[in-house]
Amino acid sequence: MLTGKNYIGNTLSSKGEITFKTFNPETNRENDVVYSEASDQEIQQAVNLATSAFASYKNLGGIKKAEFLNAIADEIEALGDELIQTYCSETGLPEGRAQGERGRTVFQLRSFAAMVKEGSWVEAAIDTAILDRQPIPKTDLRKMLVPLGPVVVFGASNFPLAYSTAGGDTAAALAAGCPVIVKSHPMHAGTGELVASAIHKAAEKTGMPDGVFSNLNSSGIHVGIELVKHPSIKGVGFTGSIKAGRALFNLASQREEPIPVFAEMGSVNPVILLPEAAKERGVDLAKTYAGSITLGSGQFCTNPGLILGIKNNDFSQFIDSLSDEILKIDPTCMLHPNIIGNYEKNKALVASQPGITVKADFENDVDVNYGRQTILTVEGATFLENSVLHQEVFGPYSLVVQCESKEQLAEIINNLEGQLTGTILAEENELSGNQKVIDALQNRVGRIIYNGVPTGVEVCPSMQHGGPYPASTDSRFTSVGIHSVKRWVRPMSFQSWPDALLPDALKNENPLKISRLINNISTSDSI
Amino acid sequence: MLTGKNYIGNTLSSKGEITFKTFNPETNRENDVVYSEASDQEIQQAVNLATSAFASYKNLGGIKKAEFLNAIADEIEALGDELIQTYCSETGLPEGRAQGERGRTVFQLRSFAAMVKEGSWVEAAIDTAILDRQPIPKTDLRKMLVPLGPVVVFGASNFPLAYSTAGGDTAAALAAGCPVIVKSHPMHAGTGELVASAIHKAAEKTGMPDGVFSNLNSSGIHVGIELVKHPSIKGVGFTGSIKAGRALFNLASQREEPIPVFAEMGSVNPVILLPEAAKERGVDLAKTYAGSITLGSGQFCTNPGLILGIKNNDFSQFIDSLSDEILKIDPTCMLHPNIIGNYEKNKALVASQPGITVKADFENDVDVNYGRQTILTVEGATFLENSVLHQEVFGPYSLVVQCESKEQLAEIINNLEGQLTGTILAEENELSGNQKVIDALQNRVGRIIYNGVPTGVEVCPSMQHGGPYPASTDSRFTSVGIHSVKRWVRPMSFQSWPDALLPDALKNENPLKISRLINNISTSDSI
Repeated sequence: MLTGKNYIGNTLSSKGEITFKTFNPETNRENDVVYSEASDQEIQQAVNLATSAFASYKNLGGIKKAEFLNAIADEIEALGDELIQTYCSETGLPEGRAQGERGRTVFQLRSFAAMVKEGSWVEAAIDTAILDRQPIPKTDLRKMLVPLGPVVVFGASNFPLAYSTAGGDTAAALAAGCPVIVKSHPMHAGTGELVASAIHKAAEKTGMPDGVFSNLNSSGIHVGIELVKHPSIKGVGFTGSIKAGRALFNLASQREEPIPVFAEMGSVNPVILLPEAAKERGVDLAKTYAGSITLGSGQFCTNPGLILGIKNNDFSQFIDSLSDEILKIDPTCMLHPNIIGNYEKNKALVASQPGITVKADFENDVDVNYGRQTILTVEGATFLENSVLHQEVFGPYSLVVQCESKEQLAEIINNLEGQLTGTILAEENELSGNQKVIDALQNRVGRIIYNGVPTGVEVCPSMQHGGPYPASTDSRFTSVGIHSVKRWVRPMSFQSWPDALLPDALKNENPLKISRLINNISTSDSI
Repeated sequence: MLTGKNYIGNTLSSKGEITFKTFNPETNRENDVVYSEASDQEIQQAVNLATSAFASYKNLGGIKKAEFLNAIADEIEALGDELIQTYCSETGLPEGRAQGERGRTVFQLRSFAAMVKEGSWVEAAIDTAILDRQPIPKTDLRKMLVPLGPVVVFGASNFPLAYSTAGGDTAAALAAGCPVIVKSHPMHAGTGELVASAIHKAAEKTGMPDGVFSNLNSSGIHVGIELVKHPSIKGVGFTGSIKAGRALFNLASQREEPIPVFAEMGSVNPVILLPEAAKERGVDLAKTYAGSITLGSGQFCTNPGLILGIKNNDFSQFIDSLSDEILKIDPTCMLHPNIIGNYEKNKALVASQPGITVKADFENDVDVNYGRQTILTVEGATFLENSVLHQEVFGPYSLVVQCESKEQLAEIINNLEGQLTGTILAEENELSGNQKVIDALQNRVGRIIYNGVPTGVEVCPSMQHGGPYPASTDSRFTSVGIHSVKRWVRPMSFQSWPDALLPDALKNENPLKISRLINNISTSDSI
């Protein structure tokens, strides 16, 4: 049962005066539940609770944290059909997608649970004392990762489950030992409340301190700003637009004590189609890419929004096939009238630029809030000159760039903004002749794909989701996979500390049986 | 032979109009060599060279990079007595310190050489494909750390060798695969030029690309600002004051493409003397701390500038002993008239605050530029109220705070700014009764020491040198030890990439024989 209230730690609360509703883009109507935006007092209460929860939560062992994370996964599953229906009613996305995203969400939670239960993730390093070293003795020094403190997670519009309330950012932060305050996304506040209720139940069942998690409703930017500015907040996770992510980054950088902001933002995910592949497989690739561009109405951060090739007959044929194939696909509902409004506006802006040709634009009647897929083309020289064409158009859209030469292609890549992904579509024998293009692409991306599609972000340790700015604000971290925990921790050294008082991860006997670096050798042995 | 010129890659260059000299604080005279500040044109040339060097240097194998780093160490040693004499003439520090710091510098270079030669530092992670997975196949994904790009390193006034031209920041960045441009510190431009000449020789001998290293002279802030603002620069390393470090951080955050700045800045390194230890060992500890406070004229970032205890007779006795002992020590020369000028000014500012008592102040005649050691005391309540007292006074100085109670002590720690280190001086039996104080201290520091002194920063993997702001701008990284390489790298994933074209670290056969995470299991096996 949705209440429309905030979770201030364990307490449902609605003291604020601002209210709002979510919107069903399929029915084009508001949903019924009235949500109460968190008041300044509620924000302060949530931060105070998180700060006091940190004192005990930071010292909790991996087994207890794993219980909590697994219990969250269980409770999310136990929400059953109500979660799926609420999700669909707030996003216009189909049930299958809701179920898939729920599966991804609980998988992430359980992956982090397994990681903290095993325990080696703290990167324990020990250098033992050498008391007779000349000219001065070497003291005993032991290092491990410790949590930063309470952090804020912003829900993402396009992933109501996997990158929102109990999504990757939250799971990673809770695994790290950081209490989390979620700034719920207004478009799916109901989904957020249900998931928050699951976290709340899991926290109670596993004996977590009150305040380890709070969920704050918000209709605008005020709640997020207050949270990021609060001196007790020590880190921020965000998934969304460049404009909003950069604003949060600026705010955090300007604090008296700057804090890290990991914002995963915009990306056009360039795809380079090399000539041999265009010749051999152009038609097949066109079909594959028509599917990738329209997947989930193009509302993925890894949507291929830019396709580059060398101008010739094969590439022209590819463009024709892509345009034909994409028009065969039925448009689908987008997340919200604001999202489709921005899509139409941004697409029109690109289409109005000099030198742009509209190759495909779905023209049949569609339901309201359904996104019409579009393929535009432009010459390489024109693309180079006009940075408007470089910008992400969030939706089922791709811009195809016809380059004059390999050299122009490399120049375009070198001048691209940072990207989450880059893809090379090639025959294996033409890779060696295009090393400059590949090298250039590697410098601009977090993940480089060979003969695949960028959509589909596997949750596994070797996934890098993040990249040079503006793909993310700090390319040194990923937001997907267990290594994303590193955003929320810092190393701390204990010098000459009594063994009995050290954290278990650093004790001589290695009670957790974890892998440690002892005198620069990796081992699971005791000392 | 010193030339006073900049190293723009392999080329000695002096096109600028601004010149300056270094200063010998022992003789209180300028040194002879005239240094030429890098012009805007030279800055641009250095960045261009670094950018083109990156294209090949980033792909260099660990064995080649190790040769380069070891050759730098060899060439620094081959500079022999000229380096030591130049160092001493620019710092007022004694020969023994120069030799020790040279030893630390070459040890760091060789540690990074060993790390890149071994190769596992790239944190290779591989998830192999599962082509028959339902509902969609799992693709092959492989991740490793890759260098950010050209970075800028600012020389530190207090470590002309170990944290300047070929110091920890430079060694870590070169190990990572990042070309380095050093903004040389004006106080020791000669030492910097000699070390740059050693790097230059090493680069030539080992066949490194021109531009992998440049050394730019500067007398003020212009050169540093231009470098940090340059779009081709991808990271910044800095050791120095909070004011300068924060200015660089702000500049880097405000760029169109923000870049990471790792600034290791101010710290007062609080030392907590618990009552039993004060009673049992107060006199001995006073002697030890008199030495730690005056070591190197107090010009270490880990100098114990704040000592806290509970007001009682034993603590008063400690303060008396500390004051007596510190006055027995002969003052030594400080780095530069500006440094001693700031020391006297900052000390006077604290001494003039209400409630401050001067317990010891060296009053005998000293040579010009010699720092007089000073111990001040204050009550806990007064300290809490006045943030002027929290600030670092760089020099042989410590402020002793007499707290009313354990609770007040914990409150003071909770309200302290972030610190590089915190020290607990205690008998083992009194630790359990002071858990709140210890917990509070852990939240504020990067390294916590039991019954030792904070001075002495061991170069080893388990050292964390860095801490919550303002100890450093990003507590998630260290600036000392091989793990400091993580500041200059980002993870990158290769999806479905042909084995032959993968970097060696990610190839099936594991030709480097490194430790890798394969399907979430750590192993050195091939696939």
